[in-house]
Amino acid sequence: MSTLFSQPAALRLAARAGQFTVPTAGHAPGYLQANLMVVPQADAFDFLLFCQRNPKPCPLIEVLEPGRRGMDCAEDADIASDVPGYRVYRDGEFTEELDDVSALWRDDFVSFLIGCSFSFEAALVAAGMSLRHIDEGRNVAMYRTNIPCIPAGRFSGEMVVSMRPIRSRDVARAVEVTGGFGVAHGAPVHVGNPAALGIADLAKPDYGDAVAIRDDEVPVFWACGVTPQWVAQRSRLPLCITHAPGKMFVTDLRG
Amino acid sequence: MSTLFSQPAALRLAARAGQFTVPTAGHAPGYLQANLMVVPQADAFDFLLFCQRNPKPCPLIEVLEPGRRGMDCAEDADIASDVPGYRVYRDGEFTEELDDVSALWRDDFVSFLIGCSFSFEAALVAAGMSLRHIDEGRNVAMYRTNIPCIPAGRFSGEMVVSMRPIRSRDVARAVEVTGGFGVAHGAPVHVGNPAALGIADLAKPDYGDAVAIRDDEVPVFWACGVTPQWVAQRSRLPLCITHAPGKMFVTDLRG
Repeated sequence: MSTLFSQPAALRLAARAGQFTVPTAGHAPGYLQANLMVVPQADAFDFLLFCQRNPKPCPLIEVLEPGRRGMDCAEDADIASDVPGYRVYRDGEFTEELDDVSALWRDDFVSFLIGCSFSFEAALVAAGMSLRHIDEGRNVAMYRTNIPCIPAGRFSGEMVVSMRPIRSRDVARAVEVTGGFGVAHGAPVHVGNPAALGIADLAKPDYGDAVAIRDDEVPVFWACGVTPQWVAQRSRLPLCITHAPGKMFVTDLRG
Repeated sequence: MSTLFSQPAALRLAARAGQFTVPTAGHAPGYLQANLMVVPQADAFDFLLFCQRNPKPCPLIEVLEPGRRGMDCAEDADIASDVPGYRVYRDGEFTEELDDVSALWRDDFVSFLIGCSFSFEAALVAAGMSLRHIDEGRNVAMYRTNIPCIPAGRFSGEMVVSMRPIRSRDVARAVEVTGGFGVAHGAPVHVGNPAALGIADLAKPDYGDAVAIRDDEVPVFWACGVTPQWVAQRSRLPLCITHAPGKMFVTDLRG
């Protein structure tokens, strides 16, 4: 379990063999990691439209045709087995966590790979900012907000954001650096003032772990790839499969 | 027929009443004009995926839910009557040109509004470049190329490009100016060397009108919103409705 994988293909094969079932943060540095959302074809047009209308929380890396398990962004990959962990939701409720969904696979399943923030975090660190959740070995803090996404068909709900404390003098630079990462949520959606987002207490995130905010820091909020999972729950989607938190699909694309 | 409309809503109402049936170039300056593609719901996921995979020829402005005729980007508009001219294609063949498609409308029709080059042309002119087809009152020259689009489901075919002669000293600036217009095809896909695109003779465009290229000019090629029409033909789509050439849908969005 403690092996550090530098290459995406090796990590995916280990996940396929059931030998890699932990979060992917820190593995295959420099490669784009992706959130996964699988929905039946009957809901696929609505969900694709939802992503098109809400590109900040749902930046699309690749969408597979119905039933397809292989893809362009990762050689010889199988989307039904190469993610280190999956979650199944039925009628909007979380029902199972699995490390392989081949047994559930259907010919009408459509897979969506959605950008995640790992790649822009590396760029922030490279620009001289330290990120507390990384320094402290925690998951990033995520919050449900009162910002409505633009609905599409049956999909509606509020945006989920991730929060990183940034020093006041670095905020503008953080906007510039992440603004260049369209496929990983881009520039922040909100800076400071969590109450305006409907966040009552930063110490109580809805997902991930809380981190301290120091006196010289401002909480900066980015659109988060957990949004589609929350929207699927809110929309009482009959069936969907996602990656398990932190256990992303690792692509061959350079982040 | 010679009225110049400055406001999109007035132009749309005139089109709806059958009193405006000419090309929209030069009308409602500063407002975004759109290519139209209407397909039945059975083909809508594949076409949305095609646009997602080919954003340069198919930059999406808005996609309407099945059956919907109103939209967000144009107040009180009706997509089935407010375009000055429509073309109907059946099994990939052009069959009718109409100025209203209300009588054909079905509850399963999905409308796609796709960016067009009119807005970036205004920016090129504002940056000091003269555009020959505008100066000469012609339609821009368009060519089918040998550049394959990324297929999606039943949709496949080659990219159509528009060509504008640009002075050598202005080419870099033209790239910079149009690169900022993601919703209108963005930066050029090709500069110079038409043979490499499979274009045998610039004097014989596949759509629009030929223009002369002077000694100090280079032909510059941009992805073109006619691409989806060509792809629909190539893919022998059972049914689709598009705008008629040059008769665009005029939105309320600032270009």
